[in-house]
Amino acid sequence: MKVTVLSGGVGGARFTRGLLAHLAESAPGSQITVIANTGDDMWLHGVRVCPDLDTLMYTLGGAVHEQQGWGRREESSRVSQDLAAYGVGWDWFTLGDLDLATHLARTQWLREGLSLTETTARLCERWRLADQGVRLLPMSDQPVETHVRVDDGLIHFEEWWVRHRAALPAREFVQVGLAQAEPAPGVLEAIGEADAVLLPPSNPVVSVGTILAVPGVRDALTTTPAPVVGISPIIGGAAVRGMAAECLATIGVAASAEAVARHYGRRATGGVLDGWLVDTADAEAAEKLAADGWRTAVTDTLMRDVPHTARIAATLLNLV
Amino acid sequence: MKVTVLSGGVGGARFTRGLLAHLAESAPGSQITVIANTGDDMWLHGVRVCPDLDTLMYTLGGAVHEQQGWGRREESSRVSQDLAAYGVGWDWFTLGDLDLATHLARTQWLREGLSLTETTARLCERWRLADQGVRLLPMSDQPVETHVRVDDGLIHFEEWWVRHRAALPAREFVQVGLAQAEPAPGVLEAIGEADAVLLPPSNPVVSVGTILAVPGVRDALTTTPAPVVGISPIIGGAAVRGMAAECLATIGVAASAEAVARHYGRRATGGVLDGWLVDTADAEAAEKLAADGWRTAVTDTLMRDVPHTARIAATLLNLV
Repeated sequence: MKVTVLSGGVGGARFTRGLLAHLAESAPGSQITVIANTGDDMWLHGVRVCPDLDTLMYTLGGAVHEQQGWGRREESSRVSQDLAAYGVGWDWFTLGDLDLATHLARTQWLREGLSLTETTARLCERWRLADQGVRLLPMSDQPVETHVRVDDGLIHFEEWWVRHRAALPAREFVQVGLAQAEPAPGVLEAIGEADAVLLPPSNPVVSVGTILAVPGVRDALTTTPAPVVGISPIIGGAAVRGMAAECLATIGVAASAEAVARHYGRRATGGVLDGWLVDTADAEAAEKLAADGWRTAVTDTLMRDVPHTARIAATLLNLV
Repeated sequence: MKVTVLSGGVGGARFTRGLLAHLAESAPGSQITVIANTGDDMWLHGVRVCPDLDTLMYTLGGAVHEQQGWGRREESSRVSQDLAAYGVGWDWFTLGDLDLATHLARTQWLREGLSLTETTARLCERWRLADQGVRLLPMSDQPVETHVRVDDGLIHFEEWWVRHRAALPAREFVQVGLAQAEPAPGVLEAIGEADAVLLPPSNPVVSVGTILAVPGVRDALTTTPAPVVGISPIIGGAAVRGMAAECLATIGVAASAEAVARHYGRRATGGVLDGWLVDTADAEAAEKLAADGWRTAVTDTLMRDVPHTARIAATLLNLV
């Protein structure tokens, strides 16, 4: 089975790990392509940081800090503590020692002329993602950086998200570089040739929304013969993780399972989705959407552990 | 007293530390300008590494790894060990975690548009060099990188020095970028307005020689009203530290206290030196040089500890 996932960081990574567990049982030999949001990427002290790619790589490669959901297990912070002693800014951004090694390897290869796709593939060799049938792709090889328009001007998304915890009113999200960006090699093919395209419960605005904004990706989704189904990142009117509600508010979408589905839209009416899996708390939303022609399902969508997440993935695939 | 030192890494840093100890006793309030070789600088994994500037900063700031002579005390190598797991090259170059913080701070500031001079001043604030009357200057704000012509082509000096331990025959040293380089702000003034200019026992070819090669520096030395005196890095026909003999051989200069003095040359005859301090093992060289009009002195020049090095500095200043 060929499955393609459009993913942000922690939520998408955990979902994909469950998906792998499910497919290993139900469809051994499946090929899974994960297309990662790279809108959160940034230059930090001269090194290239790719938060979502790394969270996916560490999670699927068994190296993630489990409680935290991102970064490396057994991490330390000798470098960042010493950087702080120089009074260097960005001290709100955690730069773990082991994580930094990933950034430095990536930066070395990027500076040697490799693309982000090639660089990502090299990093993933160490974590043996191919052994699990997984190929991790950046959404684009061109730099795209999400900035947030706050009252004082534009700041990098990570500054708004990590430093200000999304507490500064966000007037607009601006993807700097998007106009010059193309889908990375393999992205359109992975959508067009898949048996199923999945949207995990990632942030609909700044994760999946950014991937969809890369020229050509939305068209690939609307035209692929594969069914496209997703999981609501909103349970009972609240974001399960992160500050998706604040992001939705900025683009004028209510923080509800139904509103997010309607924001993505149904493919039959010009949107990108065929089906939508919601939490049991949102059974009413599922009924309303089903009445409008959506394929829907209802289950406990909180990704507690790998076995439970594997069951969520199975339920989602049942919508296909 | 205004003293200017032209320095490489370990040897120059240890000498300067002794000089500071001597001046603190004999001439409190002295201003010491150290002009550092930056020919060993390089980009490594996207961060800017400046070995000699850092060795000077750590040594004068009390942060150096004493036994090693370079790098930080209480250093660790979590990042570099993890980098090696990615199979990234340059694993022959030690990239300590704390040292890396220095490189990252520098890289951040360089990318923000600060010059190397400004960046160095900011880094030195943490180590309180100004409190000791010390100003640390790079020889140039433009990148100059020493490369070594070996049989297979050009390699970076650090690769020849650290990786190959100077064992590959060096046909030539090439300073890449030298033609476009200017002395950093303050360098020519520090030479022209000093009461004394000192050459510590740094490598005459790839440390002091590189500083002298920056357009304008040699002229500043030949024309300064200040006496210019140096210490032989060769004792009894062998380099005290490092592989200076191999470097001297490449440029056709014998590894002897006398030959190095004659290579620098006496200012009265177009060279850059007025006086030359040699080790007791080389008393004969001092006699020959004195017969030719050099100011010379003889002492135990091995820099064992700070008090002894302070006495060496005092002897050198007596030549002024």
